[in-house]
Amino acid sequence: LLELIFVGFGNVARRTVRLLEQMRGRLPFDWKGVAVITARHGWAHAAAGLDMAAVLEVLDSGRSLADERRGDAADLITGLCSLRSRVANDGRLVCVETTVLDIRAGEPATSHVRAALSGGAHVVSANKGPAAFAYRALADLAEARSRQFLFEGAVMDGIPVLNLVRETLPGVVVTGFRGVINSTTNHILTALDRGEAFDAALARMQAEGIAESDPTLDVDGWDTAAKTAVLMNVLMGARVTPHDIEREGIRGVSPADVRAAAARGERLRLVASADCDAGSPRGRVRLERVAASHPFGSLEGQQNAILIRTDLLGEVGILQRDGGLTQTAYAIVSDLATIAGRLTRAPTAVVRSPEL
Amino acid sequence: LLELIFVGFGNVARRTVRLLEQMRGRLPFDWKGVAVITARHGWAHAAAGLDMAAVLEVLDSGRSLADERRGDAADLITGLCSLRSRVANDGRLVCVETTVLDIRAGEPATSHVRAALSGGAHVVSANKGPAAFAYRALADLAEARSRQFLFEGAVMDGIPVLNLVRETLPGVVVTGFRGVINSTTNHILTALDRGEAFDAALARMQAEGIAESDPTLDVDGWDTAAKTAVLMNVLMGARVTPHDIEREGIRGVSPADVRAAAARGERLRLVASADCDAGSPRGRVRLERVAASHPFGSLEGQQNAILIRTDLLGEVGILQRDGGLTQTAYAIVSDLATIAGRLTRAPTAVVRSPEL
Repeated sequence: LLELIFVGFGNVARRTVRLLEQMRGRLPFDWKGVAVITARHGWAHAAAGLDMAAVLEVLDSGRSLADERRGDAADLITGLCSLRSRVANDGRLVCVETTVLDIRAGEPATSHVRAALSGGAHVVSANKGPAAFAYRALADLAEARSRQFLFEGAVMDGIPVLNLVRETLPGVVVTGFRGVINSTTNHILTALDRGEAFDAALARMQAEGIAESDPTLDVDGWDTAAKTAVLMNVLMGARVTPHDIEREGIRGVSPADVRAAAARGERLRLVASADCDAGSPRGRVRLERVAASHPFGSLEGQQNAILIRTDLLGEVGILQRDGGLTQTAYAIVSDLATIAGRLTRAPTAVVRSPEL
Repeated sequence: LLELIFVGFGNVARRTVRLLEQMRGRLPFDWKGVAVITARHGWAHAAAGLDMAAVLEVLDSGRSLADERRGDAADLITGLCSLRSRVANDGRLVCVETTVLDIRAGEPATSHVRAALSGGAHVVSANKGPAAFAYRALADLAEARSRQFLFEGAVMDGIPVLNLVRETLPGVVVTGFRGVINSTTNHILTALDRGEAFDAALARMQAEGIAESDPTLDVDGWDTAAKTAVLMNVLMGARVTPHDIEREGIRGVSPADVRAAAARGERLRLVASADCDAGSPRGRVRLERVAASHPFGSLEGQQNAILIRTDLLGEVGILQRDGGLTQTAYAIVSDLATIAGRLTRAPTAVVRSPEL
């Protein structure tokens, strides 16, 4: 029985709770929610387990939970881990971190992860920030405490790119990758392919709720750079932050650029890539021309793809053909299943990949 | 320490041994070869471990191992499991099955797998036959003996399609798939795309060692049908054999067909597919026209791809960009790692997917 502390309770966390309910009986673990911490709608805690349906109903209707926030969430997490220390000692306490992120600094998510691991909880996060800014330190902390720090939802929603390498490619060395991993920019570029103008395409994305009201993070390549840093840190053992990634956005793209590419049988795509050619891994986010028949050329809208270069298998590709909230929620569910699965292993013999 | 019995010792097994040696220290397990059984070059057994370098040298030079074959290999496997029963009881004995297969009947590989599981050994196979013809019976036998029956190398070489679903998509229901999963036919079709004639393309593939001297199994769709049956049995809980798969080959394809497709912006590809639309799963191997920009349209030569349709994540795709002997050998290595990893779990709490 996993006990879950939800830190942040927006769309991703709510969909996660609903998915966990929907999948009861199909999952190899049971769970209960023991705490919910929100940024502006209070918090709640019940050692016996919260009535999650009631929590959803209160927050969906815009009301607040009974307890007010005092101090910051990291202190609350520390206190809750202490209250549930027996469960934490059993390795059954998990912090599910889904707060709103400042992608340029990785906070406050990184502080939340540190507090939870320090308190003996595992951490599952949908946030890119902690792994993009502090992966090595947090992974070392997790290892020292014999706890898991997992974040499959940070890249390509629920498509298992991090788990693919960790669980199914033992002993394989990742030497680089290339990917289209940001949906908003891909939506805009595919709209340009169809002849829409940049501003019109962006406005339509915003109206449909696909792009943020402040699209800077996507359009200027920050989101892609953060995901690139996560992939490099986890898959290639790099120690980079998003600020170390050479970064380009799509703001300058005109319909004329797109037409010129099309005339050559090509498409423009915002491509994340990394390689080790110069010794230490280097990451880039660049607007690239790809052949229309390339796996990246045919990606539309929410579709993402990544080609992982390995020493033994050549290139392995994984495609996300449908993305969205359910996929991200599923990533959290699958990380919880990983934690539950490892609880049944003898602690002295956990198989670790070189990166973890 | 895993003890390995090699049944069949052709190119795949030899590359596997070399890869295991090359990866020593990078893998989460140690191993020794205790027996090698060949079809025409004798067999050898040593409880303390065979000198695998010497075995490779003898067989590479075309000579035979010391012991002659008496009776059939299944009886030998039974005897060897009995000799190593203490190791089998510890769950550390593994039969690595890579014999030449009659794809129309699934033998003799299926008998070898049955003998090994009955003797308390795990089984790792690169053969499609056992899972295509007798998956449910063999999986039930493995479960009854608390042993693993794994065969990642049977489909898409070392690209982890079976492991992807089993290890990284807990609780997800696979509702169908579409894939290009036979390299020889894909080589021929891409040669036709470039203007070569069918017979010339096939002759060139045979000269280069890509196609068999008897290409019937590939060209008439038998190999693809067998892989389709494996995928349906494992991922969708079906109980089909290759004979249940609606099957079409590529023998009738002319350069004119290819040109007509190209004029419409399409490519011809041999597509394996399965769906549950009519209740029970149905499988097909069909020559299909796909858009040049579709993930299948851009596949060249050894490249394979499969799109897996799921209830929760929509479609998940996986691409093999480079295939070959090393990839197949790696599939065996990764299956051995799975077995070694599970040895460290408490036997009462092994997480099983619904299909396993």
